Amino acid sequence: MSHKLKMTAEEIAGFLDAEYPEMHEGGQTIFVETVDHAAISTRFKAGERHLRPGGTVSGPWQFTLADITGFVALLAHLGPVALAVTTSATINFLRRPPPGDLIATARILKKGRSLVVVDVSIAPAGSADLVSHAVLTYSLPPAKQ
Amino acid sequence: MSHKLKMTAEEIAGFLDAEYPEMHEGGQTIFVETVDHAAISTRFKAGERHLRPGGTVSGPWQFTLADITGFVALLAHLGPVALAVTTSATINFLRRPPPGDLIATARILKKGRSLVVVDVSIAPAGSADLVSHAVLTYSLPPAKQ
Amino acid sequence: MSHKLKMTAEEIAGFLDAEYPEMHEGGQTIFVETVDHAAISTRFKAGERHLRPGGTVSGPWQFTLADITGFVALLAHLGPVALAVTTSATINFLRRPPPGDLIATARILKKGRSLVVVDVSIAPAGSADLVSHAVLTYSLPPAKQ
Amino acid sequence: MSHKLKMTAEEIAGFLDAEYPEMHEGGQTIFVETVDHAAISTRFKAGERHLRPGGTVSGPWQFTLADITGFVALLAHLGPVALAVTTSATINFLRRPPPGDLIATARILKKGRSLVVVDVSIAPAGSADLVSHAVLTYSLPPAKQ
Repeated sequence: MSHKLKMTAEEIAGFLDAEYPEMHEGGQTIFVETVDHAAISTRFKAGERHLRPGGTVSGPWQFTLADITGFVALLAHLGPVALAVTTSATINFLRRPPPGDLIATARILKKGRSLVVVDVSIAPAGSADLVSHAVLTYSLPPAKQ
Repeated sequence: MSHKLKMTAEEIAGFLDAEYPEMHEGGQTIFVETVDHAAISTRFKAGERHLRPGGTVSGPWQFTLADITGFVALLAHLGPVALAVTTSATINFLRRPPPGDLIATARILKKGRSLVVVDVSIAPAGSADLVSHAVLTYSLPPAKQ
Repeated sequence: MSHKLKMTAEEIAGFLDAEYPEMHEGGQTIFVETVDHAAISTRFKAGERHLRPGGTVSGPWQFTLADITGFVALLAHLGPVALAVTTSATINFLRRPPPGDLIATARILKKGRSLVVVDVSIAPAGSADLVSHAVLTYSLPPAKQ
Repeated sequence: MSHKLKMTAEEIAGFLDAEYPEMHEGGQTIFVETVDHAAISTRFKAGERHLRPGGTVSGPWQFTLADITGFVALLAHLGPVALAVTTSATINFLRRPPPGDLIATARILKKGRSLVVVDVSIAPAGSADLVSHAVLTYSLPPAKQ
């Protein structure tokens, strides 16, 4: 995984804005945070609509965050592949997240010709205690290979 | 699984409205459809904000639908257990859903003292061709046992 | 899924014997049971080496059974594709199996050009109470498509 | 996760030998390699019976290795809990393993009162390129808590 990354954080944010504007419906909450060889991560700024009773981010929103973060890692490594689709995902909810921002960090497990597998860990900003962990598989369009 | 169900479709809908009002933020889209021994199902009426390019329901919204439908099945079988939480989920996205309503159908795989495992199949209304399939695990609070 | 099946139970058993002889190392324990449109299933006859304390089949052997049964379903629907490989699997262990044979029943969830997704339910012979449930994804070789 | 480990590599190996002698049926292949705060890992020495055509370790044996390695991590962190059982597992097979030993490395994602979630990465000895990756959940007996 030591090759050159194909897109910067700014390029990925611009690509997502242009291709997936519905992502920001109701106000943007997921922001590309870091894209370099040390880490690929996003930040989730929760609003009222994402919270379950007790002020914590709901499971489906954590899933959304994991899915987008894995896609950010795919873009960083492969460049602007708009037609990649998520084919499967497993998420483990480990503990109730405290109030405040969440940071999702991605790690590419496999970068194959047709499948990309990404590991995503979600923790509160400034903490190493995971609140959830996901593994997602994305399928690449054959024409781009 | 032949015991009496503990809540009706109306009771479950009322319980979700009262306990999880944030579910309907932006307009209600998930409706309890059927709760009887033959089937437990919900209906997803997609609005603009749920759609990906091409007019199809996004993966994260399919995940949300699966998570709520599994919880509806748990409520039907166990009664109003507000403190059950999703501990893990695996979802396979099988094909791009066509425009229109989706029906999610739940089947309880295990009803243990502390864990409930539910299988959820999602298909377009009126079709048997699955668009996605999920298996979800819910943890029950110890005090309720 | 109403098309004609491509292989019979006997043809699949012969194919497995020829291509995967190591499957029967230590004595054959997995047998193709039924291959028709109503059901695709295998039978696991446990020997001493598969049992955990208490006389029940170990989790890894249940995984092996699920993996082979999904592959049997793939062969039945696609014909003799020796180069298909399992790319991912999720298994839920639902309860401790009682002593005796297990029956694993497969259902194809998706039959795509490059990925096949299969649902496998494992229950004691003569019972409908599942002991485990798995969803497996197989990748097909591009040349065969 | 900075607390003192409860068992050494030798104690865990002795515990497994005593409680799960069937693990070594046909000759021991899985060895506790390292148990300290830097890493918890096992080594798989493949014999003929574990190999698929081409001389590579089969998927079910990789699953077995992941399951045992997660259990080794659980023992290291919790002490000798014989009655813990695997409740679910997701495994992604990333690439065909080359011939030779495999090293499986475990990382505890959650250590709850009733559920322990472990991440296991499998790579050839001396390599960082994963051949498979699993996340496993173990359920603890209530009496031991």
